[in-house]
Amino acid sequence: MATWKNLDTLSSYDKLSGLKNHVDIATAMSGEQGGERVKNYSTPMAAGLQYNYAAKEVDETVLTALAELADEAQLIDKFEELYNGAVINTGEKRMVLHHLARTQLGNPVVVDGVDKRDFYVAQQKKAADFANKVHAGEIVNEAGEKFTTVVQIGIGGSDLGPRALYIALENWAKANNTFKMEAKFISNVDPDDAAAVLASVDLAHALFIVVSKSGTTLETLTNEAFVKDALTKAGLNPSKHMLAVTSETSPLAKSDEYLTAIFMDDYIGGRYSSVSGVGGAILSLAFGPEVFAELLDGAAAEDKLATNRDLLKNPDMLDALIGVYERNVQGYPSTAVLPYSQALSRFPAHLQQCDMESNGKSVNRFGEPVDYVTGPVIFGEPGTNGQHSFYQLLHQGTDIVPLQFIGFKNSQLGVDVDIESSTSQQKLCANVAAQIVAFACGKEDENLNKNFKGKRPSSIIVGDKLTPASLGALLAHFENKIMFQGFVWNLNSFDQEGVQLGKILAKRVLAHDTDGALKVFSDMLNI
Amino acid sequence: MATWKNLDTLSSYDKLSGLKNHVDIATAMSGEQGGERVKNYSTPMAAGLQYNYAAKEVDETVLTALAELADEAQLIDKFEELYNGAVINTGEKRMVLHHLARTQLGNPVVVDGVDKRDFYVAQQKKAADFANKVHAGEIVNEAGEKFTTVVQIGIGGSDLGPRALYIALENWAKANNTFKMEAKFISNVDPDDAAAVLASVDLAHALFIVVSKSGTTLETLTNEAFVKDALTKAGLNPSKHMLAVTSETSPLAKSDEYLTAIFMDDYIGGRYSSVSGVGGAILSLAFGPEVFAELLDGAAAEDKLATNRDLLKNPDMLDALIGVYERNVQGYPSTAVLPYSQALSRFPAHLQQCDMESNGKSVNRFGEPVDYVTGPVIFGEPGTNGQHSFYQLLHQGTDIVPLQFIGFKNSQLGVDVDIESSTSQQKLCANVAAQIVAFACGKEDENLNKNFKGKRPSSIIVGDKLTPASLGALLAHFENKIMFQGFVWNLNSFDQEGVQLGKILAKRVLAHDTDGALKVFSDMLNI
Repeated sequence: MATWKNLDTLSSYDKLSGLKNHVDIATAMSGEQGGERVKNYSTPMAAGLQYNYAAKEVDETVLTALAELADEAQLIDKFEELYNGAVINTGEKRMVLHHLARTQLGNPVVVDGVDKRDFYVAQQKKAADFANKVHAGEIVNEAGEKFTTVVQIGIGGSDLGPRALYIALENWAKANNTFKMEAKFISNVDPDDAAAVLASVDLAHALFIVVSKSGTTLETLTNEAFVKDALTKAGLNPSKHMLAVTSETSPLAKSDEYLTAIFMDDYIGGRYSSVSGVGGAILSLAFGPEVFAELLDGAAAEDKLATNRDLLKNPDMLDALIGVYERNVQGYPSTAVLPYSQALSRFPAHLQQCDMESNGKSVNRFGEPVDYVTGPVIFGEPGTNGQHSFYQLLHQGTDIVPLQFIGFKNSQLGVDVDIESSTSQQKLCANVAAQIVAFACGKEDENLNKNFKGKRPSSIIVGDKLTPASLGALLAHFENKIMFQGFVWNLNSFDQEGVQLGKILAKRVLAHDTDGALKVFSDMLNI
Repeated sequence: MATWKNLDTLSSYDKLSGLKNHVDIATAMSGEQGGERVKNYSTPMAAGLQYNYAAKEVDETVLTALAELADEAQLIDKFEELYNGAVINTGEKRMVLHHLARTQLGNPVVVDGVDKRDFYVAQQKKAADFANKVHAGEIVNEAGEKFTTVVQIGIGGSDLGPRALYIALENWAKANNTFKMEAKFISNVDPDDAAAVLASVDLAHALFIVVSKSGTTLETLTNEAFVKDALTKAGLNPSKHMLAVTSETSPLAKSDEYLTAIFMDDYIGGRYSSVSGVGGAILSLAFGPEVFAELLDGAAAEDKLATNRDLLKNPDMLDALIGVYERNVQGYPSTAVLPYSQALSRFPAHLQQCDMESNGKSVNRFGEPVDYVTGPVIFGEPGTNGQHSFYQLLHQGTDIVPLQFIGFKNSQLGVDVDIESSTSQQKLCANVAAQIVAFACGKEDENLNKNFKGKRPSSIIVGDKLTPASLGALLAHFENKIMFQGFVWNLNSFDQEGVQLGKILAKRVLAHDTDGALKVFSDMLNI
């Protein structure tokens, strides 16, 4: 059994803390030694990706200290306990099994006589069969016609992840002839969200997936009612247009108002549920079940790498520990995720949820306050767009923001144009390469307004092309990074009590059970 | 003439620094006094909006200190100099005239015999006339058919602002019968961006607006070539499908390859250019020139409020100074913008650019290093979505993130559904009211995992409905806030030297003129 201790009780952390500002990356990344560093500070990920950390503020000394921290914090032991079914989510007293939705890493995990791997595979098969029948015209609308659009109704983990993955693969699927139907998403309780999406779809040929584990999420139930209302008004039968992704004990599970119900359980949290039916149903409908299976395989291969005790061969743990060094020793409060890929335009928003909801905590897994900073603020937009926007602050602002670049050698669609002896894809790649060096090395100028101090750390994940498999590996990489950081900080990364108070107060507002500030704000907003 | 001094040389700043943690908002916002505070700490903005700062860490003492800082830093004098045509952009030796694109606040500003207000109005009229002719079928495609879609090709300021404003008004225009044509945007040099947008439009009926002040922006020229290539391959004549928004001296200005050219000048920076032809052409085409004019009127009315020397009657300056107090005295490194309006989904990305590119600087307007922190990291997503995502960290994380809420009493489309005795719009508003109080007051719980410390400051801008006028006021509010903060920090908020180094290095990569780290990264990315 691993021992769970606060970060500041570990002697290896003490040692690491002594290494503040140990590496000057402006020097380390300059000249020929910089080239050597880029070659050496790289480790393979799954699906042909590689994680390059040459422009991070590390050297052999820091890396050794990080490896000692990984050992002392028993990170791999904890991961093993997790995938073997220990109750890692201490707050809600639940196991944490999202890895099991893509691979069996350890021993069978059996709950109430059900092997959980079998359960997840069965639900994937259910989603796949449903999708195949829709594509084959066996499941059709009231008029016997094929469905052409699928709309997901969900919020938070039921929205951001699946939406980011759909956008990431839409062009790939079109280029590879696996595109089956367009997907749209309704999430916000703002009625303009649902109304605008509904106005953009052909209702008679639209399928709707209602996603709520508990079957009680306010926004989702409200939007479901909104959609049912619209279907009914259009003379359509909602039960012929809707399916549910929910838990077996939810009110949605037993309803005959759905074409089918695909089940989730309590062991995969919303922000980790893209690999369950939450992502599986919509992605299988949009691109075919084979594409979703490839994504799971990519994630599974990355998970396997994350079991390696050798820090330098475990890109997920290495990225996590460098992040801890940046957050707790170097004192950087935020991190930017910068994919040089328009297809990953919503991937930073998904990671923002995954990271900030998992590790934005001030008490440890035993409910005791911690005396060190935990999860950073995460934000990001695709490059090169960001270069013409907030990069000014990243280059010359008073605070240092660590950066996580992502880049691919090839575009997804393969349509390109050659201008001034280079393609757009080459320009895109040239820009990300240039940014890493510009951030690290800077450039002296007598005019301080044009001076770049450099010393702004970044890493890059490089791949051949954004495919289902590499996207799965990317997703698993960040999930595992967040998990390892939670272990280091001794947090429970798998609950989210911080979202409860707002819900309770919102109910009081709607019940007109308010006083003081809440009442005046309610009046001001005409509630 | 105003005197430009560093913040840390001002005696009022010294005094303000002594007020760290002066107000406990958990107490101040509780009970009946909380209600009084919400009523009192509110100031009108233009277009029926109001700025409420009850949940900010201020009281009469802090507000008095902020007013003294506003006076000593001569913020209104500096604003007056700006709109009267002083060379405020010291780095590039340029005037800063974006206010003049919407209103004449001061004396006429004449450059080379041209009254700049007349120039901006003339360009707006040119954009309006062009749009009217397109709508009337007087400007048509080769086959004499009407255009149905307009696509903007631009990046940074030529993309984020216009895109955010288009998304903000799309539903409003549809509900108010002023929707003329769909707009799309191509920005990234990633070829998958242009290819995907082109695949989604009917080329024969599409207009393209090429937006580049200099006429040399790499991404925009490359994407223009990409589009021309596609038009030509489709048997269409690019010059019958394209217009330019550019400066009079740019290579694009004199080209007969465009249907028309609408002019910009050097005195409106990219991130402030939504009110010039950069936003005017596409918004006039999409919604009609009258809608764009209403937006300008809303901005103009807000600008007028920003000239008020009374801090409590100047919402833009007040917001700015509270932000300085949070950044420099309280030490908060980032700020979240949280609109409870799906229509404002990309407004935070625009503000992220506007703020971080303007004030992400380490040297003052004279090119000397400053010894205090300047612009914060800005990020945000619409609510209620964010509540199911990163709000966990905002409520219970180890760092405090100041929050800027935006909410409207009414939806834009007016289509709604009543579930459990409330509409979706009421639920949306109930949630934002609840969040402000939850963040400020928190809630004690013996189980520390469920404990909310509160004391997390926020403000809210409340409006009746998101309309062209209120959107214009909102845009001007944040632009003016950023301007005032730049004055306080003694920065030049109107240049962006930090984006140059990356451009230079990218050119070297494309010319294969690299060594060391840059060469190895280039090889890794197959350039």
